[in-house]
Amino acid sequence: MNNDTIQAIEAQNITNAKKLSIIAFSGEFDRLTAAFTIATGAAAVGYEVNIFFTFWGLNAIKKENGRAAIGNNFITKIFGLMMGGLSNTPTSRFNFCGIGPWIFRKLMSKNNVATLEQLVEAAKTLGINLYACEMAMHVLGLKKNDFINEVKDELGVASFLKISEGGRTIFI
Amino acid sequence: MNNDTIQAIEAQNITNAKKLSIIAFSGEFDRLTAAFTIATGAAAVGYEVNIFFTFWGLNAIKKENGRAAIGNNFITKIFGLMMGGLSNTPTSRFNFCGIGPWIFRKLMSKNNVATLEQLVEAAKTLGINLYACEMAMHVLGLKKNDFINEVKDELGVASFLKISEGGRTIFI
Amino acid sequence: MNNDTIQAIEAQNITNAKKLSIIAFSGEFDRLTAAFTIATGAAAVGYEVNIFFTFWGLNAIKKENGRAAIGNNFITKIFGLMMGGLSNTPTSRFNFCGIGPWIFRKLMSKNNVATLEQLVEAAKTLGINLYACEMAMHVLGLKKNDFINEVKDELGVASFLKISEGGRTIFI
Repeated sequence: MNNDTIQAIEAQNITNAKKLSIIAFSGEFDRLTAAFTIATGAAAVGYEVNIFFTFWGLNAIKKENGRAAIGNNFITKIFGLMMGGLSNTPTSRFNFCGIGPWIFRKLMSKNNVATLEQLVEAAKTLGINLYACEMAMHVLGLKKNDFINEVKDELGVASFLKISEGGRTIFI
Repeated sequence: MNNDTIQAIEAQNITNAKKLSIIAFSGEFDRLTAAFTIATGAAAVGYEVNIFFTFWGLNAIKKENGRAAIGNNFITKIFGLMMGGLSNTPTSRFNFCGIGPWIFRKLMSKNNVATLEQLVEAAKTLGINLYACEMAMHVLGLKKNDFINEVKDELGVASFLKISEGGRTIFI
Repeated sequence: MNNDTIQAIEAQNITNAKKLSIIAFSGEFDRLTAAFTIATGAAAVGYEVNIFFTFWGLNAIKKENGRAAIGNNFITKIFGLMMGGLSNTPTSRFNFCGIGPWIFRKLMSKNNVATLEQLVEAAKTLGINLYACEMAMHVLGLKKNDFINEVKDELGVASFLKISEGGRTIFI
């Protein structure tokens, strides 16, 4: 096998890698559910999965007491309160002051479909890599220990692009 | 041609495949229009196109009588009514109780741009593969015959990832 | 080096290209900020970056006087007014009649994070390729000189797919 062919095969390895990376920007219940459903579905069939949480998506990885105002000044405190945590996420449509997610949860457990909380647990178990966006944390006054322990690292865009190289990247 | 080279060329075939897959999650008129515009534009220049409809996106492939409440219990009936069908989709911004989509349709037909309904027809004609998300159907109490006949199959995440392998995947 | 291997290596070049293409559909302040943050972050580490602005995303590249009603008839004039320009973009959540973006801008400048306007400037400096969607311009009655000079061209879907081939494509 000559060098060129090795290189070519490396290309194959790299480009066909079963790798899926998700930029989780949205904080709504239905979009987060979609993100975690795709992520756990992919991990279950052997994909390497990376999720990069940014902006509203950071809600998904906040500690349960994340509802409490966090951050070091008034404006970030307000945003912290408004963003809430995983159990306070609205739906992107038909939220009805919070009843929308409740209906969804009902429908999901009634029909034996994993709920968002169960999906997040599954993501941890399946070894999905969870990353927090450095810049958004900075803007919103969040620190690494505001997040669940499974969050691997804080990343910038460049590092995320490097980690997700050679696979598919979707923005949710 | 030796085996390694064959493999390498297969890599090329796989990774350069003119293949585009769309996860159609959103149910808004403007986002669905974007999804179908990209899909038909790609199919027209020889791309294999797969659309995987999930959550609100399922609106796009419901039969015209899809507006009627479907599903087998009260909560799914309510959701069925709220989701409506293709001709009841709101815009993501400036919906104005349904006038937004009407203005868009006006502008589109005035300027000789295909409307959403025409785009869906074009998608069928161009042989775009339409799939429904198994899990979302389950949650929302939808059955395969609630959808237009062109819907090829119900898929889970794993099957969709397999079908869309080697191409680009976008989430709308 | 034989022909097959050359072809295989070309495959490598194409498929591993550090190329990122963004379909910027959304017009909200937070989503546009995400789009430009990813774009400039990628360009800064040597990626070729293409942004294809469509629908509400066209707001990002309108000239400052873009707030004025543009277009050639009543309905497009109304849409032009509603869409506004870069400095009038709402946030996708917690907009509070325009206070949301103001809070974000405050937080961003307080924490030394580039604001949306600065990110757009950076995109120009980094040589990011900005394209406007031909069809959306047609629907909304926009002309090429309604946009900032850095907009390279008006493109249809097919041309955009060609330009973005071999890299990653995300829809925001």
